[in-house]
Amino acid sequence: MPRISEKGRSMPASPIRKLVPYAEEAKRKGRKVYHLNIGQPDIPTPELALDALRNMQEKVIVYSHSAGNESYRRKLAGYYQGLGIDVDHTEIIVTTGGSEAVLFSFMTCLNPGDEVIAPEPFYANYNGFATAAGVKIVAVTSKIEEDFALPPINEIEKKITERTKGIIICNPNNPTGYLYTKEEMLQLREIILKHDLYLFSDEVYREFCYDGEKHFSAMHLEGTSENVILMDSVSKRYSECGVRIGALVTRNREVLDTAMKFAQARLSPPGLGQIVGEASIDTPQEYFDDVYNEYIARRDFMVEALNKMPGVYCPKPKGAFYSTVKLPVDDADKFSQWLLEEFEYKNQTVMLAPASGFYSTPGLGKNEVRIAYVLNTGDLKNAMEALAEALKVYPGKTK
Amino acid sequence: MPRISEKGRSMPASPIRKLVPYAEEAKRKGRKVYHLNIGQPDIPTPELALDALRNMQEKVIVYSHSAGNESYRRKLAGYYQGLGIDVDHTEIIVTTGGSEAVLFSFMTCLNPGDEVIAPEPFYANYNGFATAAGVKIVAVTSKIEEDFALPPINEIEKKITERTKGIIICNPNNPTGYLYTKEEMLQLREIILKHDLYLFSDEVYREFCYDGEKHFSAMHLEGTSENVILMDSVSKRYSECGVRIGALVTRNREVLDTAMKFAQARLSPPGLGQIVGEASIDTPQEYFDDVYNEYIARRDFMVEALNKMPGVYCPKPKGAFYSTVKLPVDDADKFSQWLLEEFEYKNQTVMLAPASGFYSTPGLGKNEVRIAYVLNTGDLKNAMEALAEALKVYPGKTK
Repeated sequence: MPRISEKGRSMPASPIRKLVPYAEEAKRKGRKVYHLNIGQPDIPTPELALDALRNMQEKVIVYSHSAGNESYRRKLAGYYQGLGIDVDHTEIIVTTGGSEAVLFSFMTCLNPGDEVIAPEPFYANYNGFATAAGVKIVAVTSKIEEDFALPPINEIEKKITERTKGIIICNPNNPTGYLYTKEEMLQLREIILKHDLYLFSDEVYREFCYDGEKHFSAMHLEGTSENVILMDSVSKRYSECGVRIGALVTRNREVLDTAMKFAQARLSPPGLGQIVGEASIDTPQEYFDDVYNEYIARRDFMVEALNKMPGVYCPKPKGAFYSTVKLPVDDADKFSQWLLEEFEYKNQTVMLAPASGFYSTPGLGKNEVRIAYVLNTGDLKNAMEALAEALKVYPGKTK
Repeated sequence: MPRISEKGRSMPASPIRKLVPYAEEAKRKGRKVYHLNIGQPDIPTPELALDALRNMQEKVIVYSHSAGNESYRRKLAGYYQGLGIDVDHTEIIVTTGGSEAVLFSFMTCLNPGDEVIAPEPFYANYNGFATAAGVKIVAVTSKIEEDFALPPINEIEKKITERTKGIIICNPNNPTGYLYTKEEMLQLREIILKHDLYLFSDEVYREFCYDGEKHFSAMHLEGTSENVILMDSVSKRYSECGVRIGALVTRNREVLDTAMKFAQARLSPPGLGQIVGEASIDTPQEYFDDVYNEYIARRDFMVEALNKMPGVYCPKPKGAFYSTVKLPVDDADKFSQWLLEEFEYKNQTVMLAPASGFYSTPGLGKNEVRIAYVLNTGDLKNAMEALAEALKVYPGKTK
């Protein structure tokens, strides 16, 4: 029997999926499981996007341009221009989800053995793409006591070695919900220019900024045209996770030309998703206002409910729809499994994402979980009630 | 300015795309360009597949399972069982086009530096995925004089080194249209078992077999469960190139488990494409009969027209919708560019794919082109007429 690859062997399993069999078993027992573990919003996809599909006139679903349909890229450039990001359609490669934008960025910019610095906790799938590209993610720890702000610049600089080629951030952040301030972004600007690094900026939650805070994009950083690579997606913006449409955006012409060769090898991004994505750009502001109000209500409810539970600390996130939360438990992995395997309250339980999978420093996040507030407030209320009960009776409770 | 990666630098540009600017320029001049260069069929997508999209009831386009929707995988398993390929839905990972199936296969099975043997000419994008995975494709030459039959087994064995981990075939073949016989497949079986190799079998043209010939799948080879990885796609089968739905199919459980980790990192294959793909499995036989008759007519017309031109040799392909054709020209790259830049006949010209891009041995294919008979016979007639005229007046004509 031929052997699988080293890469395959070291490829990390998704930390969120490990619990899936337990959740399935709980459901088989007839238990209601509230999914606070995944970033799949329940928000409807904009009607005009679904209509575009229903009214599709094409008789043959053909390959698109490898960079995506020009009509879509032109509209997308307009969307970015509206955000003060001055790019044109030739500076955009439409990708298969934000995922492919990360993969193309790594493949294009990094050699095997190179290092990319990431504030941890970070989106766990960066590890998968790093493994695929043979590169190493070097974590610099952000702390729950500081609500997961950017670690001090000298902490970041300490991590820089000869192999360091870039910094990757997710802003607003998954899994913490932290929104980087303009000042923090300017600190990052300084460091990437000083050390000639790429800044890979995952901004798929751009539309989810709260409390009047404005999103400051890496593309807004002056003098960084050659350094900044924006990785984007329609998945969260329009609740279109399944269409698998993202984008790699940069003003670095060499990166664009090279990423295009990877794009050409896989022929084209999904054609139907592009129809949806293109139509979505006309989504009216009311849609976003409704979504904003909904998430504010969910967040406020959740943060208050969590912080009322003894021993629990939940920072109030300013963006995205996650919070990384400290729980009074011995081990959040064990607790999350116990919730599915052994616990029920009124025949209900919750599924959480243990935070350990979002840290790369061993031992960190042991008593933290990521909670996605992607449920309506009614469900969220039941979920919080069940969680509060669980924390009362969990055998591995720490205080 | 940070440097791009070695991989990025060595990533091959698509041989088909090099001529695109010349074709665009010809069109700007008002010239009609017949595209014989790409495998984009003009055959309509099955109506029932488009209807499935139009009737979609979902309000939110959500992530699917990372391996693809179970309902689709179950139907797909039924499709394979109908072909005598005994697999169940757990042995299928739905991929983003056949492209991703190739990438996942290489990433899962091969270490950087490993070698995969491919009969050349071969589908040029294998090079791109090989570069992405850091592996080397080692060519064994199949010859136009033998209509591109599988090279003798001892020629293949000569290429085996300590780093050889697999053989990749495309059957029916792109770019030659050659259909491997059962005897040839049994020879491959022998060699993969003897040397403990993977057999990566790209069978996306399975439905396009002519003259009563039957397709013999690598999955039909007895005793090769651990070795054979099938890479498939709906692109050609149902003329759905743009939906980007493919599949990685294998009975090797370790490969499945490992490929799933790559699949999980990218979350899910396109959701809308899966709706189309699933509906397409019910496509009635008449659709395939019509397509078959259409391609037989195109092929027969084209092969006859080409072989009538002095100095041209076109094998009669038994599968797919390509033929790799010998032309009486000094350099098929130059000739193809000349066709677009300088030639016109009744204000028409043709775009061909120079075969050099499908060979990895330098110098081979210099006077060969790949022709895709994806146009209706009317257009094909005009294209052949223009090509015949071009060969009369081309300055680099060899006889």
